[in-house]
Amino acid sequence: MHYRRLGASGLQLSALSFGTWVTFGSQIARGEARNLIAAAWDNGVNFFDNAEVYAQGRAEEVMGDVIVDLRLPRDGYCVSSKVFFGAADAPNPLQRGLSRKHVHDACHAALKRLRVDYLDLYYCHRPDPETPIAETVQAMDALIRQGKVLYWGTSEWSAAQIAEAVAFARGNGLQAPTMEQPQYNLLHRQRVEQEYAPLYADAGLGTTVWSPLASGLLTGKYNDGIAADSRLGQPSLGWLQPAVLGEPADDRLGKVRRFTALAAELGESPAQLAIAWCLRNPRVSSVILGASRVAQLEENLRALTLLERHGEDTWARLEAVFA
Amino acid sequence: MHYRRLGASGLQLSALSFGTWVTFGSQIARGEARNLIAAAWDNGVNFFDNAEVYAQGRAEEVMGDVIVDLRLPRDGYCVSSKVFFGAADAPNPLQRGLSRKHVHDACHAALKRLRVDYLDLYYCHRPDPETPIAETVQAMDALIRQGKVLYWGTSEWSAAQIAEAVAFARGNGLQAPTMEQPQYNLLHRQRVEQEYAPLYADAGLGTTVWSPLASGLLTGKYNDGIAADSRLGQPSLGWLQPAVLGEPADDRLGKVRRFTALAAELGESPAQLAIAWCLRNPRVSSVILGASRVAQLEENLRALTLLERHGEDTWARLEAVFA
Amino acid sequence: MHYRRLGASGLQLSALSFGTWVTFGSQIARGEARNLIAAAWDNGVNFFDNAEVYAQGRAEEVMGDVIVDLRLPRDGYCVSSKVFFGAADAPNPLQRGLSRKHVHDACHAALKRLRVDYLDLYYCHRPDPETPIAETVQAMDALIRQGKVLYWGTSEWSAAQIAEAVAFARGNGLQAPTMEQPQYNLLHRQRVEQEYAPLYADAGLGTTVWSPLASGLLTGKYNDGIAADSRLGQPSLGWLQPAVLGEPADDRLGKVRRFTALAAELGESPAQLAIAWCLRNPRVSSVILGASRVAQLEENLRALTLLERHGEDTWARLEAVFA
Amino acid sequence: MHYRRLGASGLQLSALSFGTWVTFGSQIARGEARNLIAAAWDNGVNFFDNAEVYAQGRAEEVMGDVIVDLRLPRDGYCVSSKVFFGAADAPNPLQRGLSRKHVHDACHAALKRLRVDYLDLYYCHRPDPETPIAETVQAMDALIRQGKVLYWGTSEWSAAQIAEAVAFARGNGLQAPTMEQPQYNLLHRQRVEQEYAPLYADAGLGTTVWSPLASGLLTGKYNDGIAADSRLGQPSLGWLQPAVLGEPADDRLGKVRRFTALAAELGESPAQLAIAWCLRNPRVSSVILGASRVAQLEENLRALTLLERHGEDTWARLEAVFA
Repeated sequence: MHYRRLGASGLQLSALSFGTWVTFGSQIARGEARNLIAAAWDNGVNFFDNAEVYAQGRAEEVMGDVIVDLRLPRDGYCVSSKVFFGAADAPNPLQRGLSRKHVHDACHAALKRLRVDYLDLYYCHRPDPETPIAETVQAMDALIRQGKVLYWGTSEWSAAQIAEAVAFARGNGLQAPTMEQPQYNLLHRQRVEQEYAPLYADAGLGTTVWSPLASGLLTGKYNDGIAADSRLGQPSLGWLQPAVLGEPADDRLGKVRRFTALAAELGESPAQLAIAWCLRNPRVSSVILGASRVAQLEENLRALTLLERHGEDTWARLEAVFA
Repeated sequence: MHYRRLGASGLQLSALSFGTWVTFGSQIARGEARNLIAAAWDNGVNFFDNAEVYAQGRAEEVMGDVIVDLRLPRDGYCVSSKVFFGAADAPNPLQRGLSRKHVHDACHAALKRLRVDYLDLYYCHRPDPETPIAETVQAMDALIRQGKVLYWGTSEWSAAQIAEAVAFARGNGLQAPTMEQPQYNLLHRQRVEQEYAPLYADAGLGTTVWSPLASGLLTGKYNDGIAADSRLGQPSLGWLQPAVLGEPADDRLGKVRRFTALAAELGESPAQLAIAWCLRNPRVSSVILGASRVAQLEENLRALTLLERHGEDTWARLEAVFA
Repeated sequence: MHYRRLGASGLQLSALSFGTWVTFGSQIARGEARNLIAAAWDNGVNFFDNAEVYAQGRAEEVMGDVIVDLRLPRDGYCVSSKVFFGAADAPNPLQRGLSRKHVHDACHAALKRLRVDYLDLYYCHRPDPETPIAETVQAMDALIRQGKVLYWGTSEWSAAQIAEAVAFARGNGLQAPTMEQPQYNLLHRQRVEQEYAPLYADAGLGTTVWSPLASGLLTGKYNDGIAADSRLGQPSLGWLQPAVLGEPADDRLGKVRRFTALAAELGESPAQLAIAWCLRNPRVSSVILGASRVAQLEENLRALTLLERHGEDTWARLEAVFA
Repeated sequence: MHYRRLGASGLQLSALSFGTWVTFGSQIARGEARNLIAAAWDNGVNFFDNAEVYAQGRAEEVMGDVIVDLRLPRDGYCVSSKVFFGAADAPNPLQRGLSRKHVHDACHAALKRLRVDYLDLYYCHRPDPETPIAETVQAMDALIRQGKVLYWGTSEWSAAQIAEAVAFARGNGLQAPTMEQPQYNLLHRQRVEQEYAPLYADAGLGTTVWSPLASGLLTGKYNDGIAADSRLGQPSLGWLQPAVLGEPADDRLGKVRRFTALAAELGESPAQLAIAWCLRNPRVSSVILGASRVAQLEENLRALTLLERHGEDTWARLEAVFA
């Protein structure tokens, strides 16, 4: 494993990390969850990504049980949560969004589920147009001063929204956001590469990116259609289909088919190639991997070795496929 | 139920909420209190209003017991307290007012009575000319930083006093007041509609209004005199009589008689009509309802439906009655 | 009893309060201590003054036991401690002075001895030339933010030192000192009346004054010499003698003899007259009384009644005696 | 013993203090550790220096046990820890350095090992080029506000790095560093005497210096070669050899031989003479002594007496030896 600073901060995360989205608390059994965390830890992963909304809080409960079970040293790993969508699917607006109340309540609920004294990373899972950014910054700062959160950040906020948070924090002696968690992969690059560009230098922003495989599309597994037991085939994730497959005019599937052909020619797995491509961007602090089987996780973790095997010409050919 | 932001804040309260004033801990039994909270909650109410002075603290004790008994989720409701009058009827000035000591002590006492870890909303129940506003703002800010209060506000402060608190807070990096709890009804409108007008834009002030029925006067129940078992008939509330009935020259009873006649003509209950009128003001964040019987509460909660049944002409006729 | 604001603050102390200096933990038994606190409380006293050095901490232990024993309501009384001299008579400089460490340690030790969660008032018992004032202000502010102290102040600091503390606090967003505890009596007036004058308006300074009877001298009990069983006759308080009796040229005993003669002519006790004189100064927030017997305390508490019985001519005659 | 202020602060440390480096948790048994702390305490030592890295945390565990065992009064001694190298020899970068996470985790781990509620002094054991100084200052300030640390400082930082920390702290209302822990002895003087010079006046910097005997070199014990049972002879401290013995051109051993000859002529032990020389520098707040035997410690503590026996001419001759 190698480690990278989270933006300008002094926190050094593993370049590849593990996220519980989709799998923990729903798709896989607790024993398999334990094996996945153990395998990730043994391979040097030190960041485990969570959110209140993953499996309505059950993903964090499983993570908390496994951390205790494996006796991971508290100073050796980072654990995150994210606030916005709520852990309960409730009509009550107090139980979601970024008001001081929900930021406060969701933090304490995550601490309880994860069985820890503090969250290393705490994200605003989406922007909340119904709450002033100032209120959210104040709520995050209060949690940091109380020692319940170490670093706070955002997920899928616009550059303008992040810049507003940074400016308000700096102007009021409060803790500014440290990181963003955006989607980033060969098919979804604009935000990380262009929109956020000013924030890396100005605000020292770090990124923990999700969906390096574009929900599996880049593995080539949807090249011939969507199987019922695949992620996109799950009824609860049907909403992802249009986002993943894109507009016909984009020819995403065509690009992916040419990409998998290139991978085959290089003798590499498409998944490893797609993950390694993310890692080449120095603005990416950590790439979050999801997995439902240990073998799958370990294969994806080997993406790191690919960086040593290939030079600029390989990456130029890859760029040409998605041009 | 529908929900409204508390001023510019991100906290979304139910448009109709429930207050324990007059009833809890004195007029009604604990079982009825439980039924009232359960009915309010089932109808979408997410804000329960209290004060140290209501029944000398017993109202908050009942509320605390009922919250535990009903197992309401802590992140799903807001509970308030108010500091100023003291919970004990004591000559000792340390036990009332807005000094840092009493703000501190009253908060901890309310947390204990209500059996919660923090107050969502904490109000200064009146202005205290014997305490500098700066001291009260500092005391509120300290409680917020300690995680014991989320939002603080005032009740029946003048616009000038609120503006001073806002200015001191902003100038010193402290938390400014978020809301006011003023009286507001068809017979008492000036403060909410005119005096506070600059504060809505400048300070993002929200309002949780009390006495939408003018202590019952707008239901028409005093149209023919004050019954001994009515609110105004209670010896302990006799002080309310002149305020409610007003000066003869105001002809408040005459206006109310014309109002109840209009309600009858419209086929609506006067209470629902008066509550619905409050809700039409977008500066009102939540209207606090009192009730001693579940049927009465449920009737008043149905005021929301009235907004859909009536158009501008109805409201114009209503305004004409009170012109 | 009547109550006065502590300077510009909102804290209203009883005009007469009770201090444990000299008596608690040494001179009197625990049962008598209990009786004294009970009598003070029953007479409306709401402030009990202590210090780490009084009887090397035992005075605070007795106070803590009595508070618990009498079940005084925590929001109804104020309890103080003072830091500087240490509770142990040790050569180790860490155990005295106003360093952040000793301010921190002494506060926690006083909380434990007094058996309370917070100190209402916490004084720097003397200035400490070996510690920057800034460090002491920061240490006091930290305790206030943690909820362990409500108001902090000084005792026997020069006006210049207090002004420096106020300026540093205001310039850095920290809590400024609220009160001073100076000696004040008919024979010792300069500091309260002249030196501190600018601080009352500029900093809202309050005062809790000690030694209203000039260590008993104003009672007339030393008019004919120092008895072995009097305060000045105690070996451990021998150092007080020169300060109390003053230089021969001052003719303090002569003035006191004329003062007691005037009291006799007025039909008042000299002690009550001397205490009442202190209360006439509106800059005095509270006069601290010491007592070793309930009868003595109750007599001194009756000084308040004297204010109603006498007009300006009495006070002019009194001033003439000490001119 | 005499005591000195830690720079401009009000904390008065013993001029000679005790450090657990090299000995505690590794070289010596727990009983001997107890005897050493007891002897230091009985001789007036009030500062015990530790670090997370000393014996991988075991040095702090022994210190914690001994403190409890000897019932030292918490307000009478200062105990330190240092963060940077980690307590575990792990490849995981989260477990070392000066990120907010490791500063936070290492503090809590040290509190647990030392069995105290707060650290009196908490040092950054080295500069961390991979963490912004601002982040470390914020992390230290948060611990101070939470009451878990009283004073923070650095060890072996450059003057420029310390100045940056001071400037950031002052500009943001945060606690600036109070002290540095540099190496200082007759052979290693530049940093304390020249590089830090501006910081003494500008920032009130105090120093707690280590290695007054240059790892034993100044005792003369390496005059005739390195014995296997000496500190430099230990395999784990082999890295110290080049630093201690220096470049041949420096002729350090030659200087030391002349120094020990001078000591013999003066009738003093070389160790006491070298320690006393450190104490002559008023910028040195405390000299940290290591020892593995009580007799050795007590001999070194007697260095204080040497200051009274010798005048300027002795110190001039000493300087000439190292010119």
